[in-house]
Order: sequence, then structure tokens, then C-alpha cells
Amino acid sequence: MKKKGILVVVSGFSGSGKGTIMKRLLADHADTYALSISATTRSPRPGETHGQEYFFVSREEFEEMIRQGALIEYAQYVNHYYGTPRNYVIEQLEQGRDVILEIEIQGALKVKAAYPDTLLLFLSPPGAKELKRRLVDRGTEEESVIASRLSRAWQEAQGVENYDYFVINDDLEECVQEVHSIIRNEHARVARNHVLIETIRAELRNFAKGE
Amino acid sequence: MKKKGILVVVSGFSGSGKGTIMKRLLADHADTYALSISATTRSPRPGETHGQEYFFVSREEFEEMIRQGALIEYAQYVNHYYGTPRNYVIEQLEQGRDVILEIEIQGALKVKAAYPDTLLLFLSPPGAKELKRRLVDRGTEEESVIASRLSRAWQEAQGVENYDYFVINDDLEECVQEVHSIIRNEHARVARNHVLIETIRAELRNFAKGE
Repeated sequence: MKKKGILVVVSGFSGSGKGTIMKRLLADHADTYALSISATTRSPRPGETHGQEYFFVSREEFEEMIRQGALIEYAQYVNHYYGTPRNYVIEQLEQGRDVILEIEIQGALKVKAAYPDTLLLFLSPPGAKELKRRLVDRGTEEESVIASRLSRAWQEAQGVENYDYFVINDDLEECVQEVHSIIRNEHARVARNHVLIETIRAELRNFAKGE
Repeated sequence: MKKKGILVVVSGFSGSGKGTIMKRLLADHADTYALSISATTRSPRPGETHGQEYFFVSREEFEEMIRQGALIEYAQYVNHYYGTPRNYVIEQLEQGRDVILEIEIQGALKVKAAYPDTLLLFLSPPGAKELKRRLVDRGTEEESVIASRLSRAWQEAQGVENYDYFVINDDLEECVQEVHSIIRNEHARVARNHVLIETIRAELRNFAKGE
């Protein structure tokens, strides 16, 4: 019996190093994880490939996907749709891969509602001071953009209670290891092993009866 | 702010290697873990020391501990009391150590009722066949003792749904690592980090306001 994969949502503050950690996780454990690819109606940016960063679809195609229930969750930002196609996720889970969705909190909670055994991870820098420093260090953002990001981060932090784990990214290597082992350990949760436990229990009963 | 330790109950089938795993865990991470020592009214066996394997107390002393609420849980087997003294556990948790109780399921559920954030781990061999093989391999038990152990194991397996993790001991080294990382990761649970999350949230709000 092949064990089903776990659906994992990873969210986090911008500045939490989320993107880097996900890349490392996927690179180090290519057979274990699959990264869910979102569909979007926005245009590809230079260097972006259809089926790699996103599935780039038309507004009509996206709305057809909504109608057919082909998306686990979707949302609209700045006049563009973003959503998680269901088929790819289900396929990968059936093949035993843990599927990682890198989405934000509103989407995460929709996924959890649809699939209650989803594992929700939230990544954070060690503190708000460090978060501000990382945003400033990027050097690409204006002061006002940073202020709005921090304000946004604060709003995001409102929903963290709904997550399972709050992982501090203090040291990149350690954080990659921690996220990996949290997901690995999740496979040993009693709630995910009812069939295995039932099997062992039935065997024990038969042995005890001398069968 | 020193982080409080986690109360961990480890149970498992005889033949699950529980004892060996606990010894290794304590030996490898002496600063991280403290093993709770039970009180009992039974007499010390050769080689057993008061305060090491057990606190050996009289029936009167034990019943006084019950009256004073000095035990987290207790039970009676074959006319002897066994129980978990509360003070030592609380002290160690306050000092930031994760305290491991090696008790069986009835006691585990009493501990969980008293301290709902207790982490419950259940150790199992890969299957009932392997469990039987390990019991037979010990060579010290009669056929009838083994049958009664298996029957007992089956009864124990009834309560496993109440545990958090069901850990298979297939390879000793891997199992020690897995138990260790499950307990480590537990520290990152959102439910155990409300104060930290509140702190970061408050900082973000202040930064966003430009304070």
C-alpha cells in the first residue's frame, strides 16, 4: 500500500526567506516533494515559463476553471486571478509526494477548509526588527513600500493562530532542516495512520488468539 | 524569557524497543530531556536505587501523596502503587527541559487530562509479526507469557487513537532520531508560541505606524 502524500501550505512574511527555503527543499528532496504551480491571468514576466512559475491562462479559461471546480482556492489581486489547480495536487498526493503550496493566509485557510488534513506552516524572521532589516537590505524597495509591507505583514500575522507551526528562520540551513523534518514527522501522526494501526491491531488480536 | 519544556509521554508495546530508545535519547541529550521518576510501593529489586529507577516509598507515604495531590497520575498493579510525582516534573519543565514520562496508556490519558498540552507518543515494531518475533527472541519468556503479552498489546492498541504520534521502530538509530526530532519540532507549534507571536505582531504594528 503506497502511502499518500501530505498537502502542505507554506506561508510567511516577505523577508522570511520563504522563497529560498522552498527552493532548497525542492532541490534537496526532489522525489519527496512537489511544488504546486498556480494558474494566473497575469502576463508572464521576462524569464517566466508556462508550467514552470505559473500556468498562464486567459481570463475566460480561468473563469471556466472556477465554474468546473478545478481550483482548490483562488483569489483576485490587482485585477488578476491567481489559483491552485486541483488535478496536479491530487495526482502528486496519490503518487505519495508531499505537495507544497506557497500561498498566503486567505488562500491557506480556504485550502484547509477544503482539505482539513492540510499541514499549515508559517515562516517568520526572528523578530519584526530583523524583518525590517531584511526588507531594507534588499535595497530595491522605497521607504514607503517597506512601510506598506510591514503593515501588510502585521495584517497577515492576524491569522497565524490558524497555522500548525510557526517556524523561525534564523539560520537558513537549520530552517530548511526544520521544515523538512516537520513535514517528515507529520507522516507519523496517529490521525494519518489509522489504516496501519488497524492492521497491526487486527494482527495482534489474531496472534493473541493463537491463529 | 526562558522557554518552558514540553511534557512528553512515551508508551509502546513491549517489544517496541521503548526502553532502549529512551536510554539513548537521555544519554545523547542530557541537557534537553529529563526522565520522570515514578514513585512505587513495591520493594527495590537487586541493583535498583531509590531516586534512580524509582522513588521507593511505603504504602502510607504513597497514600499521603495521593491525598495531597502530589501525583499527576497513579495506578495500582498487583497490589502495588505506581505514580508520577508532580513536583519534579513541574520543576524540570520550568527549567526548560522536556520531561519524558514512560507510562502506559491509562496513565497517559490521565496526564493528558490534567495537562492538555502533553505530547503523546506511541512506539511500535513494524507489525505484529515482528513484535511476536522480538518477544520470542528474548528467549526469557514462556509461550504462554508471550500469548498474554500479545493479548495485552492488543488491548493497549485500543487507546492509540488518543496519541499524537505513532512511531515505528524499524531501525533503532532512525527511531531515536525521529523521536528526538518530533519532540524538537513540537516547540515550533503555533499553540506553544502565542507569546512570541504576540510580540512579533506588536512590533510589526509599531514599525508599520512608523514608531
